[in-house]
Amino acid sequence: MAQDKKFVEQITSMKDDFAQWYTDVVKKAELMGYSSVKGFMIFKPAGYAIWENIQKELDARFKETGVQNVYMPLFIPESLLEREKDHVEGFAPEVAWVTMGGLNKLPERMCVRPTSETLFCDFYKDEVESYRDLPKVYNQWCSVVRWEKETRPFLRSREFLWQEGHTAHATFEEAEERTQQMLNVYANFCEEVLAIPVVKGRKTDKEKFAGAEATYTIEALMHDGKALQSGTSHNFGDGFAKAFGIQYTDKDNTLKHVYQTSWGVTTRLIGALIMVHGDDSGLVLPPRIAPIQVDVVPVMQKKEGVLEKAAEVAESLRAAGLRVKVDDSDKNPGWKFSEQEMRGIPVRVELGPRDIAEGKAVVVRRDTREKITLAIDELATKLPEILDTMQKELLERARAHRDEHTYEAHNYEEFKDIVANKPGFVKAMWCGDQACEDKIKEDTTATSRCMPFEQESISDVCVCCGKPAKKLVYWGKAY
Amino acid sequence: MAQDKKFVEQITSMKDDFAQWYTDVVKKAELMGYSSVKGFMIFKPAGYAIWENIQKELDARFKETGVQNVYMPLFIPESLLEREKDHVEGFAPEVAWVTMGGLNKLPERMCVRPTSETLFCDFYKDEVESYRDLPKVYNQWCSVVRWEKETRPFLRSREFLWQEGHTAHATFEEAEERTQQMLNVYANFCEEVLAIPVVKGRKTDKEKFAGAEATYTIEALMHDGKALQSGTSHNFGDGFAKAFGIQYTDKDNTLKHVYQTSWGVTTRLIGALIMVHGDDSGLVLPPRIAPIQVDVVPVMQKKEGVLEKAAEVAESLRAAGLRVKVDDSDKNPGWKFSEQEMRGIPVRVELGPRDIAEGKAVVVRRDTREKITLAIDELATKLPEILDTMQKELLERARAHRDEHTYEAHNYEEFKDIVANKPGFVKAMWCGDQACEDKIKEDTTATSRCMPFEQESISDVCVCCGKPAKKLVYWGKAY
Repeated sequence: MAQDKKFVEQITSMKDDFAQWYTDVVKKAELMGYSSVKGFMIFKPAGYAIWENIQKELDARFKETGVQNVYMPLFIPESLLEREKDHVEGFAPEVAWVTMGGLNKLPERMCVRPTSETLFCDFYKDEVESYRDLPKVYNQWCSVVRWEKETRPFLRSREFLWQEGHTAHATFEEAEERTQQMLNVYANFCEEVLAIPVVKGRKTDKEKFAGAEATYTIEALMHDGKALQSGTSHNFGDGFAKAFGIQYTDKDNTLKHVYQTSWGVTTRLIGALIMVHGDDSGLVLPPRIAPIQVDVVPVMQKKEGVLEKAAEVAESLRAAGLRVKVDDSDKNPGWKFSEQEMRGIPVRVELGPRDIAEGKAVVVRRDTREKITLAIDELATKLPEILDTMQKELLERARAHRDEHTYEAHNYEEFKDIVANKPGFVKAMWCGDQACEDKIKEDTTATSRCMPFEQESISDVCVCCGKPAKKLVYWGKAY
Repeated sequence: MAQDKKFVEQITSMKDDFAQWYTDVVKKAELMGYSSVKGFMIFKPAGYAIWENIQKELDARFKETGVQNVYMPLFIPESLLEREKDHVEGFAPEVAWVTMGGLNKLPERMCVRPTSETLFCDFYKDEVESYRDLPKVYNQWCSVVRWEKETRPFLRSREFLWQEGHTAHATFEEAEERTQQMLNVYANFCEEVLAIPVVKGRKTDKEKFAGAEATYTIEALMHDGKALQSGTSHNFGDGFAKAFGIQYTDKDNTLKHVYQTSWGVTTRLIGALIMVHGDDSGLVLPPRIAPIQVDVVPVMQKKEGVLEKAAEVAESLRAAGLRVKVDDSDKNPGWKFSEQEMRGIPVRVELGPRDIAEGKAVVVRRDTREKITLAIDELATKLPEILDTMQKELLERARAHRDEHTYEAHNYEEFKDIVANKPGFVKAMWCGDQACEDKIKEDTTATSRCMPFEQESISDVCVCCGKPAKKLVYWGKAY
């Protein structure tokens, strides 16, 4: 047992040092590794498998709304990146530049895509001629590069994986509808599959995407009370269309510019999973996203019939549609239990010679550690129910935590006190002036997370300047 | 009908100009588009959907053999690429170099991965400590960049999509077994899913992968008699392990180097699909890989009940597990038929008011154009059978074509005559000397495709120099 303890103790307590706890969990759950390429991470099998499940679920939801997948070039010539003014200002300082191809210097340098608006625009300009060619509702799954200075697994690195949807529409209204539709796809996915409740809202002009008319966001609250922007959806109006000359002939035979959107989520969703559900023993994965849902752990596995029974149980659970592994390694059971906990496998089934003789098995839930003794025969019917319950309770627990850590500030003193002493979301009124946003950030390091769709009036005046308030804003420190 | 004809006539006849036919099919089937980034292509929805199906099928087959997916960095520092001598010589001249990150010049330039052996080695060096850590059987799906001078859709471009498996094993034998296992996965996939028969064999030293001890290949024959290398699997022995210092402690407590493999297939498989099955009307997709298998075409769709019946039929076919589209656009039926043919949708179901009144529908197979009248009620049971038959017959037809275009050469005059006048594979004996390979290439432009696993002796002497023969080799002009 000595080795088991040491094994577990390698995870720093969340309360002692949240950042170190996070790094420890990423390492001990074997989600990601540091590469010797500075600022770049390696997705290990356990981490990549989560991303595969995210892709599978989201891709199916996208396709239900008519999305088609495509793949655009990895590189963007500098002149193309520069076509839309706000966009290039937002991205040019943080891209990687390719200057040599083979043995020759390139006539024009190209950046590795930090996002692909410009490539899609360049494509749509030739693809779209008539109203019959609209809408275009394309998406790609790929990696992008942004030259970040700091690296944190899943949250910030020089390369990350994501999907980027890019659409073109005949009218502003249709583009707006698509922008909000995709935000809702993200929000529903987060709640239903990742068990992460989100606040939906609109970004202020200061925080919106470079080149967008409106940016919508889903904001989630991490266990330490910091916010994580978890997905965004942008309405570009016809700004890009004008910069790139994307026009179509309408039914009335006149030339019109298209209206565009883009929307994306990234591998930082895995960071959100860790920081919303994890605990001091490691990762806790909601059953619907867990690559392995059930860890069957044979106890005293050298005894006759134990491994056979474990394999038989696993097979019956797989037949019931569950994702199952049998840990038949030569480690001792305590070690295996710790591993299952670190890796966040939703339930384990303990199965020893005595259990088998009695026709029973002990099921342990990862989140509550509740032990449930079940007849082996009923595992295949009861485990799916237990996993469903766990999925629901994880969401409820996360929502309760989020609500408990959402505060209202009616004046600036109260605001500063909350930000300094009570990590979480702060709801406060705002006049709409960027000067107040800037001041709040400078005074407190909190930023405006979003103007929630569900607006309330908790005061008549701006929390910062006291002028008449225009909007309720969620504020918070953020990743 | 004038517009339909023109529509079809835009595909050049295969016999007139095979290269132009290929380009036309890619364009008219909307598989790929040229981007304004020189040498880079755009995968359009119809092309990317084929790749998604290839991924889905192959990924499942990989995972059945224990493969786990990971994701490694996009960039390779120059010093890392240089670690293995043969490897760097093979790749350094054809990579893209990143020299700036953000606003700063990088201390060391990095290439965009042309392949990831060096990154996996750098990773395994830290991950593998004990025999318990072996084998590592990892794979990644990604894009790679190689600075090609010419561009041909799917066959050659500066960026392409692929999967690259990279494994590490305790023994040479285990590595060799994995190398051949994956070649067989590829071969079976090509035959069973793509309906493309392949010759399995080993590459000569001249043609093997930079850094490999042995390269195995599957070679397919295109409609024009040229060969296409369709997948490769490499056994590296312990060469990379020694260059990168990847060692493990074995059960006997001694330090040993690991043995490695890598294996990959790329989006050129889509090029193979086009050139093996296509005809003068466009693409022909084998049902198992076709993103859409059935195109339901309503005829006189403005008549009452036609569109409703088409939707109903489509729904019943979907319920039978088929991938179905209803073409309810406002184009005329002839145009819709041409589109279905160009896009290679395996069967269309023609459904007009008279058919509906009689409870019948006309099914037309894309490959044979055979018209089959079926009761509407039996579509859901008969169509899967028709698609199965089509899948089998496409493979048989491709195999017959391949066999009819495989020749034997017993002396050099015969060899040169065949290469010059009979496009196809040439089987001929070889002494094992690279000088003969070089001479044959110079004299005829044919290259050694592989030394097939199924060896025969068709002569005692090398077809080129007349010295004693060591191996039967498949030769051919290749893409």
